[in-house]
Amino acid sequence: MAEGSSGSEFTLDSIRKSLIRQEDTIVFCLMERARFPMNSALYNQSLDLVPGFSGPLVDFIVQETEAVQAKVLHSGGASININKAIWDMYLNQLLPLFVVAGDDGNYASTAASDLSCLQALSRRIHYGKFVAEIKFRDAPHDYEPPIRAKDADELMKLLTDERVEKMVKKRVEKKAIVFGQDVSGSNNAVSKHYKVDPSVVARLYDEWVIPLTKRVEVEYLIRRLD
Amino acid sequence: MAEGSSGSEFTLDSIRKSLIRQEDTIVFCLMERARFPMNSALYNQSLDLVPGFSGPLVDFIVQETEAVQAKVLHSGGASININKAIWDMYLNQLLPLFVVAGDDGNYASTAASDLSCLQALSRRIHYGKFVAEIKFRDAPHDYEPPIRAKDADELMKLLTDERVEKMVKKRVEKKAIVFGQDVSGSNNAVSKHYKVDPSVVARLYDEWVIPLTKRVEVEYLIRRLD
Repeated sequence: MAEGSSGSEFTLDSIRKSLIRQEDTIVFCLMERARFPMNSALYNQSLDLVPGFSGPLVDFIVQETEAVQAKVLHSGGASININKAIWDMYLNQLLPLFVVAGDDGNYASTAASDLSCLQALSRRIHYGKFVAEIKFRDAPHDYEPPIRAKDADELMKLLTDERVEKMVKKRVEKKAIVFGQDVSGSNNAVSKHYKVDPSVVARLYDEWVIPLTKRVEVEYLIRRLD
Repeated sequence: MAEGSSGSEFTLDSIRKSLIRQEDTIVFCLMERARFPMNSALYNQSLDLVPGFSGPLVDFIVQETEAVQAKVLHSGGASININKAIWDMYLNQLLPLFVVAGDDGNYASTAASDLSCLQALSRRIHYGKFVAEIKFRDAPHDYEPPIRAKDADELMKLLTDERVEKMVKKRVEKKAIVFGQDVSGSNNAVSKHYKVDPSVVARLYDEWVIPLTKRVEVEYLIRRLD
């Protein structure tokens, strides 16, 4: 839930504000990870490069436990956790798109950056539970038939708003442009070298964040009337 | 040392680039911390609000151990660590300037944000060792007399360049303006509400980061010829 808000303020507007602010966090996290090269050796769990990290990083993704969650969400929501899919997407598909190849030996810093990215992405994607709950409450009559029929395809159709998705993708791309610029010290010049390619951030949302969020939404709704 | 560079590239230029990039990291970290209110209860070490955090956060600031450090720095440098001063500054002076009062119960996220801030500040300030070593190598004849005389005041004078310090303060303020803006999704509008007051970031550098870095530089140089 949006930081600083209590359960009684659980509204589409508060959720929306939190999702927009989380975009900034995700962009910041990716830019920080981009300071380091791939450092593949870190992800080989047989190596013990970072003291205290004996398993794969995915084991360290702690899902944000927000006190309000228990109050406002249907109890089935607690069991939904797609961190393994998020980890797989992050390591095998996203990382190679925005870090350079190579190894600089900075494994501890790289692991810390990865964890920040994974936490931010996990939090964003699992917010789908809140989004789904709000959508259900706003239009229970639309959602009840496909929920009772366990019709995931129909639920996915109901949840999809292509206009909003397009707007989100444009907005995160713009954030990567604004936040990723080199701010020069002199004469207000700003270079065009970005910390993370803005099109990669748009693609992250297009191919993974939005579809995985909708997967969480569907999983949540399917259980909503159990 | 700058990520991706080896010991042989230890130059004023590589150090300068890393310091400038670290400014971005510090601004990002502060903006992330500003998502939460003060959450004072977290800093009361008699409470056990965050599992695994039994002592004050300062105990968790791990100073970046960079492989290159041993190769390029005089051995006396390893003993210089002013994390306690950084922690005191951060908690008692800086935090109240950029977070709102109050408590929202998000202690784990707040602690993680604090740690990121403290790591970034600690790393930046202890880079004073590299800066001091470079300055010493560039002008050993200027530095040797005050080092032999253990004249900290004279060393501080030699290390101070007010023109550069002014430029740094202007640059970090600008970064807080650029990175801290609300990026709207529509019509390219950008609001003037910043995530962290840009003047606070300039003040952070003016009152704490620059003086503490120079303190590290002086401590390093005083031992340089032992």
